[in-house]
Amino acid sequence: MVMTIDTDARGVFPISVTPFNDDGTIDYVSMDRMTDFFLALRVPGFTLLGILGEANKLSAAESLELLTHVVRRVDGRTRIIVGVQPGGFNDMQSVIKAVMDQGASGIMLGPAPGLRTEEQVLGYFEALAGRIGPDVPFVLQDYPQSSGVYMSPATMGRIVERVPNVQILKHEEGSALHKISRLRAQETAGERRRVSILVGNSALHLPQELARGVDGANTGVAFPEMLIEVCNRFFNKNSEGGEDLYDIFLPLIRHEWQPGIGLAIRKEVFRRRGLIDCARTRAPGPALDGDDHAELTRILKRLARRLDQAGEGSLIASYPVREITG
Amino acid sequence: MVMTIDTDARGVFPISVTPFNDDGTIDYVSMDRMTDFFLALRVPGFTLLGILGEANKLSAAESLELLTHVVRRVDGRTRIIVGVQPGGFNDMQSVIKAVMDQGASGIMLGPAPGLRTEEQVLGYFEALAGRIGPDVPFVLQDYPQSSGVYMSPATMGRIVERVPNVQILKHEEGSALHKISRLRAQETAGERRRVSILVGNSALHLPQELARGVDGANTGVAFPEMLIEVCNRFFNKNSEGGEDLYDIFLPLIRHEWQPGIGLAIRKEVFRRRGLIDCARTRAPGPALDGDDHAELTRILKRLARRLDQAGEGSLIASYPVREITG
Amino acid sequence: MVMTIDTDARGVFPISVTPFNDDGTIDYVSMDRMTDFFLALRVPGFTLLGILGEANKLSAAESLELLTHVVRRVDGRTRIIVGVQPGGFNDMQSVIKAVMDQGASGIMLGPAPGLRTEEQVLGYFEALAGRIGPDVPFVLQDYPQSSGVYMSPATMGRIVERVPNVQILKHEEGSALHKISRLRAQETAGERRRVSILVGNSALHLPQELARGVDGANTGVAFPEMLIEVCNRFFNKNSEGGEDLYDIFLPLIRHEWQPGIGLAIRKEVFRRRGLIDCARTRAPGPALDGDDHAELTRILKRLARRLDQAGEGSLIASYPVREITG
Amino acid sequence: MVMTIDTDARGVFPISVTPFNDDGTIDYVSMDRMTDFFLALRVPGFTLLGILGEANKLSAAESLELLTHVVRRVDGRTRIIVGVQPGGFNDMQSVIKAVMDQGASGIMLGPAPGLRTEEQVLGYFEALAGRIGPDVPFVLQDYPQSSGVYMSPATMGRIVERVPNVQILKHEEGSALHKISRLRAQETAGERRRVSILVGNSALHLPQELARGVDGANTGVAFPEMLIEVCNRFFNKNSEGGEDLYDIFLPLIRHEWQPGIGLAIRKEVFRRRGLIDCARTRAPGPALDGDDHAELTRILKRLARRLDQAGEGSLIASYPVREITG
Repeated sequence: MVMTIDTDARGVFPISVTPFNDDGTIDYVSMDRMTDFFLALRVPGFTLLGILGEANKLSAAESLELLTHVVRRVDGRTRIIVGVQPGGFNDMQSVIKAVMDQGASGIMLGPAPGLRTEEQVLGYFEALAGRIGPDVPFVLQDYPQSSGVYMSPATMGRIVERVPNVQILKHEEGSALHKISRLRAQETAGERRRVSILVGNSALHLPQELARGVDGANTGVAFPEMLIEVCNRFFNKNSEGGEDLYDIFLPLIRHEWQPGIGLAIRKEVFRRRGLIDCARTRAPGPALDGDDHAELTRILKRLARRLDQAGEGSLIASYPVREITG
Repeated sequence: MVMTIDTDARGVFPISVTPFNDDGTIDYVSMDRMTDFFLALRVPGFTLLGILGEANKLSAAESLELLTHVVRRVDGRTRIIVGVQPGGFNDMQSVIKAVMDQGASGIMLGPAPGLRTEEQVLGYFEALAGRIGPDVPFVLQDYPQSSGVYMSPATMGRIVERVPNVQILKHEEGSALHKISRLRAQETAGERRRVSILVGNSALHLPQELARGVDGANTGVAFPEMLIEVCNRFFNKNSEGGEDLYDIFLPLIRHEWQPGIGLAIRKEVFRRRGLIDCARTRAPGPALDGDDHAELTRILKRLARRLDQAGEGSLIASYPVREITG
Repeated sequence: MVMTIDTDARGVFPISVTPFNDDGTIDYVSMDRMTDFFLALRVPGFTLLGILGEANKLSAAESLELLTHVVRRVDGRTRIIVGVQPGGFNDMQSVIKAVMDQGASGIMLGPAPGLRTEEQVLGYFEALAGRIGPDVPFVLQDYPQSSGVYMSPATMGRIVERVPNVQILKHEEGSALHKISRLRAQETAGERRRVSILVGNSALHLPQELARGVDGANTGVAFPEMLIEVCNRFFNKNSEGGEDLYDIFLPLIRHEWQPGIGLAIRKEVFRRRGLIDCARTRAPGPALDGDDHAELTRILKRLARRLDQAGEGSLIASYPVREITG
Repeated sequence: MVMTIDTDARGVFPISVTPFNDDGTIDYVSMDRMTDFFLALRVPGFTLLGILGEANKLSAAESLELLTHVVRRVDGRTRIIVGVQPGGFNDMQSVIKAVMDQGASGIMLGPAPGLRTEEQVLGYFEALAGRIGPDVPFVLQDYPQSSGVYMSPATMGRIVERVPNVQILKHEEGSALHKISRLRAQETAGERRRVSILVGNSALHLPQELARGVDGANTGVAFPEMLIEVCNRFFNKNSEGGEDLYDIFLPLIRHEWQPGIGLAIRKEVFRRRGLIDCARTRAPGPALDGDDHAELTRILKRLARRLDQAGEGSLIASYPVREITG
C-alpha cells in the first residue's frame, strides 16, 4: 500500500543524490545505505531523480530501475517523490504512469523552459493534468533560476485552483521570501485551498522561510538531520534554538548551494560521511580539484568544532564526517 | 553498406518532420511516403529527429524504432543523419552507438545549453568525442537561437581542428552571414582542414549564403525541390536564375521560418502536398487555427500563381499543393 | 500647436535613423533631408530616438538637441514620437517632460528588462503613468526579442484598460501573428477600448499583419514609401496588389531585418538613396565590410530590376538608389 | 593630487549606496556621513555609482554633481572609484573624461550586455581603451549574473595583457571560486602581469576567496568594518579568527546578498546604524514591507547577540545598530 503525498505534507523531504560506481554505473549498495539513512531519520518522504539526482544523465530505463530498486527497499515505510523532466506529453504520460505503477508517492515537476506568460503556464499544467488524470499527486517546483520561467504568486494560486493534482508548492525562487508570505496570505484570505509549501534552493534562508510559514523543506543539503532538527525546533516554538543550530551549518550550506560545483561538493560530503562510496558525478558534470578538497576540508573541520562547542555534536553522530580531510 | 557523411557533403540534406496519426502514434505510412519523396529527389542525405522532427517529444524507444524503419526503407540509397540531444555522456554514448549500429550515416549535435565560454565549449566536444571515438561523423549544429550558446568562427575552427569527427558545420546563427565568409577564409588561409558548410535556419538567406560559399543546405523547408534547384543553379553559375526562383518562395520561407508555429505550418504544407496524412504535432506543440489556415492558403495560392507566371510550375509537379484551401 | 498621437493613428509612421558625420557628431543636414523626405511622404508621424536611432548611444543633451532641431524643422506639419529608454522614474519623468515640452507628439516605451510577471509589468506601467500623469500619450512597444519581457494579449489588454496614456500598441513580437487577431478580438468583444495597432519588427510579415487588422506600421524600413503604398492598397481593398508590391521588396526587408548588422544595412541604403551623407554608426556598432557591400549591391540591383519589370519604379523615383554599387 | 588605483590595490574598497531624501533628491548630509565613515575606516578607496548606488536611476548631471561633492569632501584622503555604465563610446568617453577631471581615482566597468564571444569581449575593451587612452585606470567587473556575459579566466587574462588600463579584476561570478585560483596561477606562471583581484558578490564566500589569494573586497556589505577586520586577520595569518568573525555576520550577508531586495535591506541597515537618514530607493526599486522589517530586525538582534558573545562587539561600536527594531 503506497502512501501518497498530500497537502498535509510537513517536515523534511530530502532529495537524494544518485550514487555511481567508479565505472559510472549506479551504485546500488550506496543507494541502499542512503535509503536506510533516510528511513532511520523517519522522514515523511524523499525525492529521487531531481536535478541533484542527475536525472538528466540517466536513461529512461536506468531511472525506472533505480526507482524500482528503492521502492522495494523502502517497502512502504515512507514516501518516494520522483522528479519528472519536461518533454512531450506522450512521453511524460508513459513515464508518469510507469513511475506511479512502480510505487511512487507522487511526482515533482515544474514549468517547461520556454513558457513565457501566465496564460501559457496555466495552459501547460491544465493540459498535462488533463492527460494524466487527477490521481497523480504533484509537487509543483518553482525554480526559475533553472527553468527560466517566473511564476507570480497569483499564477501559482491559479494553478492550485485549476489543477487538483498539486499537493505541494516547492518554493525555490531566489530572493523571493515575500512570495511565501503572499502564498500563505491567499490561504488565510480563503482565496484558494490550502496546500503544503516546502522550500528548496538549498534551504539557504530556511529560518526566514519557516518564520514566514512554510511547512518544511525539500532539498538536498548533505546534513538532512540538521534540517529536521531546525524544523522541529521552529515547530515547537524554539525558533531561536532552531536558528542557532542552522547558523552553525550556514557556512557549509552556503558552500553547497553553489550551482554546478555544489553537486560535487554534496556528493563528497556524503562520501566523507560514509553514506556513499564514490563521489563522482556523471559527465558532463563537476568534479573537485585539490583546492576544492582543501577548502571543503576546512569548512567541515570548522563545522565539527562549532558543533562540539555548541554541544550539538550528537546530532550527526550516526554518520559523522569520518574522513574529514578528503 | 552504409554511406557516411564526410567533408565533401554538398547539396541539400532535407530535415524530415515526424508524421503522427490522429491518436499521436507515429504514422509510418506517411513516413514512408516522405522517405520515398526524398529518395526521388536524389538527395545526398536527409536528417531525422531534429528539432523539426519533434525529437524531444519521442521516447528513446520510439526514436530508435523510427530510425530502424527508415533505414530499412532507404536501404543504402542515401544517407540518414540523426539528431542527438544533449544529456549525460553515458546516455548519449549508448544512444549514438545504437543509432550508428542501426545504420545512421552520422549524427547532428550542438553544444549543450549552459556552456558559457570557448574553453567550456571546446572541452565539451573534446570530451564527448573522446567517449564515442573518432568513427562517428558529426554535423556540428550552430544554432544559438535555440541552444543559447554562441560560438565565434575561431571557436568553431578550433573544434574542427581538435575533433576529427566533425564533417559538416551547420550554420544557422541568425544575422551572421559574415560567419560563413570567415569560416571559409580559415580554409583559404590553410588554418584548418576543410569541412562542408551547410545552412539551416529555414534557408532564410540562402542566396546570400551560397554567394558566400556554403556547400548547400540542411533544413526543413517544405519545398526541398526548390532548395535543390536553387543550389544547382548557383553551382552551375546561374546565380540570378537561382535567386529568381528562391525569391518566388521567399514569402512562404519567411512564413515557415517563424519559431514555434513554423513547425505546424510546415506539417500543414506537407499535408496539403499529400506527403503526410495528418498535420498534428505532439503536445505541447503548436496548432493552426482558422486564421492561420486562411493565411497559409493565401500564401500558397500566391506561390502557385507566381510559379506559373515564371514558368517554374513543373518544379513541384510531383507533389503540387493539391488541397490549397486547407 | 502640437498634434498628439491618439487611438486613431493609421498608416505608416517611419522610424528615423540618426545620421552622423564622419567625426561621429550628429549630421543635421542629413537629418533635415530625412525629415523633409518624411514630410514629402505626408506621413502621419515619425519616430525619433528608437533603437534604430541609436538612442542608447546619444547623451541626454544630444537627444534633446536633436529633438528640438527636428521639431523646428517639422513646424507642426506632422507628429514626432520620441523613444524613451527605461531607467529610474525620476530621470524618465524629467526626460519625458522635456521631450513633451519641446513639442513631441507622444513617446514610445516598452517594459523594462527584468520585469518577470504580468503583475510586475502592470505595476510598472501603472506606477510610471501615475508619475507623469495622463496627458502624455504612449506608444506601448511590445518587442520581447530586445526587452526579454513577454506580454500576453491579456496582459496588454489590461495595460490598455488601466493606463489611459496608451494610444498605440506597437506589435513586434516575432512569430506572434495570432497576437494581432487576439488583440483585435478584445475590441470586437468590447472587452476594452479600441487602440491603434501598428507593427514593427521590420514589417517582416506586413501583408499578413494587415490582413489580421493592424492599422499600419511603425518601423525603420529603408523604403517607407513602399510601406505606405502597401498599406494604402490594403486599405483600398487591393490587398493582392499590395502584397505584390511588398513581395518585390521582401528580399531586402528580410536582409534589413537582421538584428545588429541591419542598422548598418539601413543606413547604407539611405546613403545610397542620397538621404544621408554618411552611413557610419556610433561605436560600439556594426559596419559593413566589402562582402557586405557586394551582397547589398546585388540585392538592390535585383530590387531595381523587379520594380522596373512590375512597372512600379515610379514609387521610389524621388529618391532612387543613385549609387547602386556602394 | 589625486591618488589613482593601481595593481597594488589591497584591502577593502566599500561600495556606497546613494542616499535619497524622502522626496527622492540626493541626501548630501547622509552622503557626507557615509563618506566620513569610510574615511574613518581608513579604506584605501571606495566606489560610487555602482549598481548598488542606483547609478542607472540618476541622470548624468546628478551623477557628476554627486561625484564632485564627494571628491571635495574626501579631499585626496582616499580613492574614489566611479562605476560607468555601458553605452555608446562617444557618451562613455565624455562621461569618463568628466569623471576623471572631477578627481576620480579610476573607473569600474564590465562588458556590455549582448557581447557573446571571447573575440567580441576582447574587441570591446580594446576599442574602448583605444578611445579613452591608457591613462584611465579600470576596475574590470566580472559580474555575469547581471551582465549576462561570461568571461573565462583565459579571456580575462588576455584582456589584462592587451588593455593596460586594467588594474583590478573584480571577481563576482557566482559559484566560480576556482576562477580565482586560475587567475592567480596565470600570474605565478608568468603568463601575464600581476593585477589586483578584489571580490564582489556581497563577499558571500570571502574566507574561501581570501584563502585562494584575493587581495581584498570591493562590495557594498553594510558592515564594511567587518570586511576590513576579516581581511586583516587573513593577511596577518589569523585566518581562523578571520573566518570566525565572518561567520558571525554570514546570516546577514546571506540576507543582504539577495538580488533586488538586497539593496533595500542594505539601505535599511545603514539607516538603523544612523549612517543615512532615509532608506528609500528610487523607483522602480525595492522597498521593505512589515514582514521584511521584522525579519531584518530578528537577524540584526541575533547578530548583536553573537557579537557580544564572541567579544567582538567593539568592532562596530562607532555605528552600532541603534534602532534595532526598524
